[in-house]
Amino acid sequence: MATTVIEHVLNRLRDIGVRHVFGVPGDYAFPVDDAIVAHPDVEWVGSCNELNAAYSADGYARVNGAGAVCTTYGVGELSAINGIAGAYADHLPVFHLVGMPKMPVQAHHSLVHHTLGNGEFDLFRRMSEPVVCASAIFTPQNAAAEIERLIGAALFHRRPVYLAFPADLASMPIVSQAAPLPPPVSDPAQVEAVVQTVSRMLGKAETACVLPGLLTVRAGLGAELRSFLDDTGLPFATMVADKGILDEDDPAFAGMYDGKLMNEGVRRFVEGADVVIMIGALMHDFNSGAFTANLDPAKVVDIRHHHTQVGGLTYQSVEMKDLLPALAGDLPDRNWPMAGADIARMDPVRGSGQDAITAETLYPRWESFLKEGDILVAETGTPSLGMAFARLPKHVSFENQTMWGSIGWATPAAVGAAFAAPDRRVVLITGEGSHQLTVQELSVFGRYGLRPIVFVLNNKGYLIERLLCRDPDSAYNDLGPWHYSELPSVFGCEGWQTARVTTLEELDRAMDAAQSARGGCYIEVVTDAYTAPPLAEQLHANIDAFYSG
Amino acid sequence: MATTVIEHVLNRLRDIGVRHVFGVPGDYAFPVDDAIVAHPDVEWVGSCNELNAAYSADGYARVNGAGAVCTTYGVGELSAINGIAGAYADHLPVFHLVGMPKMPVQAHHSLVHHTLGNGEFDLFRRMSEPVVCASAIFTPQNAAAEIERLIGAALFHRRPVYLAFPADLASMPIVSQAAPLPPPVSDPAQVEAVVQTVSRMLGKAETACVLPGLLTVRAGLGAELRSFLDDTGLPFATMVADKGILDEDDPAFAGMYDGKLMNEGVRRFVEGADVVIMIGALMHDFNSGAFTANLDPAKVVDIRHHHTQVGGLTYQSVEMKDLLPALAGDLPDRNWPMAGADIARMDPVRGSGQDAITAETLYPRWESFLKEGDILVAETGTPSLGMAFARLPKHVSFENQTMWGSIGWATPAAVGAAFAAPDRRVVLITGEGSHQLTVQELSVFGRYGLRPIVFVLNNKGYLIERLLCRDPDSAYNDLGPWHYSELPSVFGCEGWQTARVTTLEELDRAMDAAQSARGGCYIEVVTDAYTAPPLAEQLHANIDAFYSG
Repeated sequence: MATTVIEHVLNRLRDIGVRHVFGVPGDYAFPVDDAIVAHPDVEWVGSCNELNAAYSADGYARVNGAGAVCTTYGVGELSAINGIAGAYADHLPVFHLVGMPKMPVQAHHSLVHHTLGNGEFDLFRRMSEPVVCASAIFTPQNAAAEIERLIGAALFHRRPVYLAFPADLASMPIVSQAAPLPPPVSDPAQVEAVVQTVSRMLGKAETACVLPGLLTVRAGLGAELRSFLDDTGLPFATMVADKGILDEDDPAFAGMYDGKLMNEGVRRFVEGADVVIMIGALMHDFNSGAFTANLDPAKVVDIRHHHTQVGGLTYQSVEMKDLLPALAGDLPDRNWPMAGADIARMDPVRGSGQDAITAETLYPRWESFLKEGDILVAETGTPSLGMAFARLPKHVSFENQTMWGSIGWATPAAVGAAFAAPDRRVVLITGEGSHQLTVQELSVFGRYGLRPIVFVLNNKGYLIERLLCRDPDSAYNDLGPWHYSELPSVFGCEGWQTARVTTLEELDRAMDAAQSARGGCYIEVVTDAYTAPPLAEQLHANIDAFYSG
Repeated sequence: MATTVIEHVLNRLRDIGVRHVFGVPGDYAFPVDDAIVAHPDVEWVGSCNELNAAYSADGYARVNGAGAVCTTYGVGELSAINGIAGAYADHLPVFHLVGMPKMPVQAHHSLVHHTLGNGEFDLFRRMSEPVVCASAIFTPQNAAAEIERLIGAALFHRRPVYLAFPADLASMPIVSQAAPLPPPVSDPAQVEAVVQTVSRMLGKAETACVLPGLLTVRAGLGAELRSFLDDTGLPFATMVADKGILDEDDPAFAGMYDGKLMNEGVRRFVEGADVVIMIGALMHDFNSGAFTANLDPAKVVDIRHHHTQVGGLTYQSVEMKDLLPALAGDLPDRNWPMAGADIARMDPVRGSGQDAITAETLYPRWESFLKEGDILVAETGTPSLGMAFARLPKHVSFENQTMWGSIGWATPAAVGAAFAAPDRRVVLITGEGSHQLTVQELSVFGRYGLRPIVFVLNNKGYLIERLLCRDPDSAYNDLGPWHYSELPSVFGCEGWQTARVTTLEELDRAMDAAQSARGGCYIEVVTDAYTAPPLAEQLHANIDAFYSG
């Protein structure tokens, strides 16, 4: 039987590693939904709503390299759009598949459901344009070429793309052919120019430091980054958005760098270095310690996916994948100094018994809880601000939506991560305020037999907002009184261990049990409203700098 | 103290009846959030997420005439955008207040959280443009004029508007003045032309019928519509999107008209009439019985908010508010025939004891449950398709998102309706599939002491989708096994009556208890997967027509 438009697209997504599609079904999308369910290599995952589906695709793409979400026309795609925007901001190739009404319905400007009632059918694709790097409406004639163009764009930019399928065309046989686009190539002269420049800078330098960034793992270049560091002996410091991309027990790890807000020794080491090599790292508010970072542009080499900047010059057509080995091959292996390195773990685990749970006693426990190979999904807010300064065991991924910062992201993103890596333990740490936004996605863990460890920090409201707003006690920072620990059972998560803990004794008992749990675990950790980790306190103390831009 | 930009805007929204703002707080929106909390006449309602907040504002606007939702930049506003689109499609003036970064941050193209990281700050306003009728970024200089322009646009078009507040400008004193825009006026000659034309048509007619539509209540013209019918003696039939805008015990009520799908007698009466006067009614797929309605354009008078069409001619500057009294004053009071009228109630309540709950036994019970003055919020899907043919007691509002049809809308919309009308009983009927999308908003009922009656139809999946897709048993129509009736308790709804009913005896007992309940009620009604009301069966039988456009 001839391959249909949607089958061909799913085959190509399968080829680049997409094995699950998160979605909510809808009538205009039935041909797409049917094809996903029928595809031998792709699994449909029923999300509770479309935003959660998009967040799950985001979490999946972080671990898997690419992800996909499927929604219906109008109502579905617009519900998902904030999740797509998050994937754009955080550089994730998420494929957004959207079912549309049939072509004659569009051509006749019919007044049908899921439209604005104005006979226009191109509005929603246009609304998506700012948050995707490419889009297409698929036909039998264009499908072969368009899917190659979209895959090429998504992988080149590491951004989402939008794929629309009119319901009558999706199931028609594809009548076109196209070869995959060749991968991007470097201009050897430009690469050589960068190598020479960096070599000259480092040759004159007494101190140097690498700031490795998340764009390296987004591009699948973790091994190349590792080799570059091994071959050159360069030390590295890590910014919060980039945590977890290199092992923190590496002797070359100089600690977490966050401007003037944290770790003064690391700040002096990084900012005092003669050369700073940023590799796929982005300098935004959270990575710059609320703009308190002060790197001399003349000393910075800024390596991105497809170009490099040095000393005010931009070298185009320099692929990171080509540049890293070229640099590693050219630069000598030196014993670079690391004065100021500060890789201390958090304070030791302290307290016991009926002691209340505070930031000082909680975060070290979470640090100690982590095991080699875990995927830690840390929600925007105090949990991620605290955990950014935990010392991670080997091969622990630290996932946080640092740039976009959409609260509610973490719970469905953890679902996506769990699908992408069924053999790794997923640890979700979220504040209860954020958790409320997307809480129903807990049920997806249960429905599909996934077994995460979920910590919900119940500090009686939006703590990070209390620390940043004018009146911490403002009513808008309060939340309804939920019984969180009963949620997994109500949502059908059979066999989960659940606990609500208000003392260190209870917390320790629940965490011990979680370490050996065979099913999912859900632990509601109750603290008072104002106990916050150091970085959150620092943001509170530096509000003006933080919002100065 | 001088009035600030945001205070002035809130004052003006208060003036037009907005007393509650639904929202989720966020840092760029703090000045807006602070002003709402501090305003003496406006109450902040903390929604669980932004889409739910927008849906609640939609439900509030249906009952109250206008509504408002407040979100933060990027992440918040995009999460709400599908709810704004729904308000657009269903003609509701919802004011979307959005907090933005400070002007210097925007001017410097800073890389800050809640942006795409590309230094652009006008993208999200532009993304909203297709789903609002006007937008503005508020400054001390423009605030007075811009809020009048936006209020004028929202009330003229009965559509949402977008209001953005840079964080540094929102709290500055307003330095401008502006008077409210005058209400729209008619061209008397055009009104007279329509009156003469309609009078001539009706003078020659032996039969005539009115199709009253939701745009009349959207414009606050229910009383004018009522007088028009009383003064002319014209009978009326109602389409599903327009249900509940006139009392169904009116002797002039000829029944529900839904093309060829339902009530053949009503179809013959309406389509056979010599003149059909549509008053604020829209002919889309669900109102046309999946395009099986067949009205002769030569016989139709189509009265909209600001213009009227008759026989291919459009009369501009004809305000519905002026035309209805003018027509009523001109037309004689006649005893119009009503052959074919079919205003039968549903079948009598039948069955008892251990009988299973079926569509045939359930929908008549829901019909009987309704009391004068109720607000019935019926979710998209089989519940609204069934309840559209219930005979409503006096003054019962029937709320359904007929055009946009975004599943999940009903639960938060019922929250909004409950805030708008604290003295009326809110009855929410939703399928469990739709309920899952927005379920956390149940907690808002509990948190704010609202006492709705909630029926959740658990038919083991998306029933309407089973009836419309290729393979009803497709995995994508299935749902996780939730324990619905335990949700209110977990979400902190203290003192609610809850029940899970699987037999008619249990259902009758729970409904009896709900009739006399003093708190909220939540009844999970379990049926088999395929028992559907007649209109749902009819759509299933007419799939090709439904999707033909």
